[in-house]
Amino acid sequence: MSGTAGQPIQCLAAVAWEAKKPLTMETIEVMPPRAGEVRIKILYTGVCHTDAYTLDGHDPEGKFPCVLGHEGGGVVESVGEGVKSIQPGDHVIPLYTPQCYECKFCKNPKTNLCQKIRSTQGQGVMPDGSVRFTCKGKDLFHFMGCSTFSQYTVVAEISVSKVNPKAALEKVCLLGCGISTGYGAALNTAKVKQEAHIRQCGSAKEFGMTESFNPKDHPDKTSQQALVELTDGGLDYTFECIGNIHTMRAALEACHKGWGVSTIIGVAGSGQEISTRPFQLVTGRVWKGTAFGGWKSRESVPKLVEEYLNKELKVDEFVSHNVKLDQINEAFDLMHSGKSIRAVVALF
Amino acid sequence: MSGTAGQPIQCLAAVAWEAKKPLTMETIEVMPPRAGEVRIKILYTGVCHTDAYTLDGHDPEGKFPCVLGHEGGGVVESVGEGVKSIQPGDHVIPLYTPQCYECKFCKNPKTNLCQKIRSTQGQGVMPDGSVRFTCKGKDLFHFMGCSTFSQYTVVAEISVSKVNPKAALEKVCLLGCGISTGYGAALNTAKVKQEAHIRQCGSAKEFGMTESFNPKDHPDKTSQQALVELTDGGLDYTFECIGNIHTMRAALEACHKGWGVSTIIGVAGSGQEISTRPFQLVTGRVWKGTAFGGWKSRESVPKLVEEYLNKELKVDEFVSHNVKLDQINEAFDLMHSGKSIRAVVALF
Repeated sequence: MSGTAGQPIQCLAAVAWEAKKPLTMETIEVMPPRAGEVRIKILYTGVCHTDAYTLDGHDPEGKFPCVLGHEGGGVVESVGEGVKSIQPGDHVIPLYTPQCYECKFCKNPKTNLCQKIRSTQGQGVMPDGSVRFTCKGKDLFHFMGCSTFSQYTVVAEISVSKVNPKAALEKVCLLGCGISTGYGAALNTAKVKQEAHIRQCGSAKEFGMTESFNPKDHPDKTSQQALVELTDGGLDYTFECIGNIHTMRAALEACHKGWGVSTIIGVAGSGQEISTRPFQLVTGRVWKGTAFGGWKSRESVPKLVEEYLNKELKVDEFVSHNVKLDQINEAFDLMHSGKSIRAVVALF
Repeated sequence: MSGTAGQPIQCLAAVAWEAKKPLTMETIEVMPPRAGEVRIKILYTGVCHTDAYTLDGHDPEGKFPCVLGHEGGGVVESVGEGVKSIQPGDHVIPLYTPQCYECKFCKNPKTNLCQKIRSTQGQGVMPDGSVRFTCKGKDLFHFMGCSTFSQYTVVAEISVSKVNPKAALEKVCLLGCGISTGYGAALNTAKVKQEAHIRQCGSAKEFGMTESFNPKDHPDKTSQQALVELTDGGLDYTFECIGNIHTMRAALEACHKGWGVSTIIGVAGSGQEISTRPFQLVTGRVWKGTAFGGWKSRESVPKLVEEYLNKELKVDEFVSHNVKLDQINEAFDLMHSGKSIRAVVALF
């Protein structure tokens, strides 16, 4: 155990005091981990649209003030009572989708949606109902069970994956969300054949992209009409990644009759609904969705890190920008403007 | 070849002169089959909701006057030029979903939606664009490529399955639609595990039903809320069979988070749309549909007949009423009132 074990730690964090306001750099106090909890020194964190979604006030369950961030990498500082699977010094990636190995979801091979702590996690608190962050005398809520926009955070043991320390945390932190989600959506959820292609999929030609499509180039047609024509009947697999319900419909209807599979990854605005004619499904299209790429998190993230170390999975190429913690609002700006693929924030 | 081969045949048929009117018994003239066509003496036919859907004017593509019916069994009277797979005397079941073995749909193992003659079939004509029925000097349109409400009909060779003559046509005619669709929806589309259960599935306890659910018993909840509570989290598989878009939504949302699969079988009214929150899919429910139970028709219907003969598939139990051709409107009434499971019409 380090010298700080069992003690509150004062550290820097980017605090979201309220919705629709920039994050503020603050000195906060992070309590020691309680039973079944782990305190992590976060070294790097990505910035994801889901952080922006909550910060922008679109998440009706968003609780403020809070510490956002859910795509981190760090080193365990100390562990609470009863924690056996994780030790101080372990390199870890926090998991917003935990894996308890005990609930009926964990026991079912078809899903990764462990529900053990879902209720408290959704309320921004630890499993015992309390929080581990205070700032200026006020409690700060947790976010997605991770809160990686702080130099130290506390998460549940079942929300921690121990990874190979040979992997650079400033890269593999992205396996905490974005890369794992997209890769898993193709592999686990849509079950895309042609694995060779998947492993090179991404957002640009260096990842294997062969065609791009801009709906504005086809002003007289819907996207789905244009795509069905361009692909001689429709696409085998489509993925909706931006949380727009109109794109979700277009993605389904751009699928090929008989076998096209459309997978929703993006998170839509609260209360919004998707629609289509049922004929689209009766004629063989399948509509599904995925969270964290369908990966059972604690067992899978360490394997994804190994794939990265074996050069089977690209990660470095997704890091387009590096910033310091006090520049984190710029990382949000880069994301909103479309200039970054991922900006990685160094917390120390 | 029989003595009638190559000649028009005069016979009785139940003609739909216009939407929303009862069928009328008429003597019609049935032309000989042209190249690639087969003329069938229809002995028995079921009456299905899809016939009623078109007769009631809900199908915007419904063409009148026409000969309805698509769940028939009969004996081949004669065949047109080039027909090799079917001979006069063969016991056959007409197929509203053909199987040409040549189109990209037939070549893809994931779908049964042969598109070879879809366009003309949808327009109520034979593949060459003409019709084989006349009555009182007027052409009658075909229906779903079958038109089994006539003592004789003409269908495309790729729309005929040759079945074991040991099977009673007054029973296995139902394999032309209803039973195959429901059985295949579970087996091929939803891929229900527990095959032992499937083989006993049906609409009543003798088919293995263990529970029934009436939304009216839960006036303060939606069907999906009540079902999720009753089943401790939701159903593994749901099937929507009545073509109601509200039931379709309820069926999806009554599925269990993480792995529930909802399959749409029913045909909704023209232009109607289904809706849900995308969160339902992102949290692991799958929305799909099926036509003719996903069976590749020509190769599968003969096998289903064998399963029936081997007592592996129940068919007799679905025949609740038997009527004569001139009582066919009563068969529609029995169906609408919910009194029949299936009424089988004898044409001779």
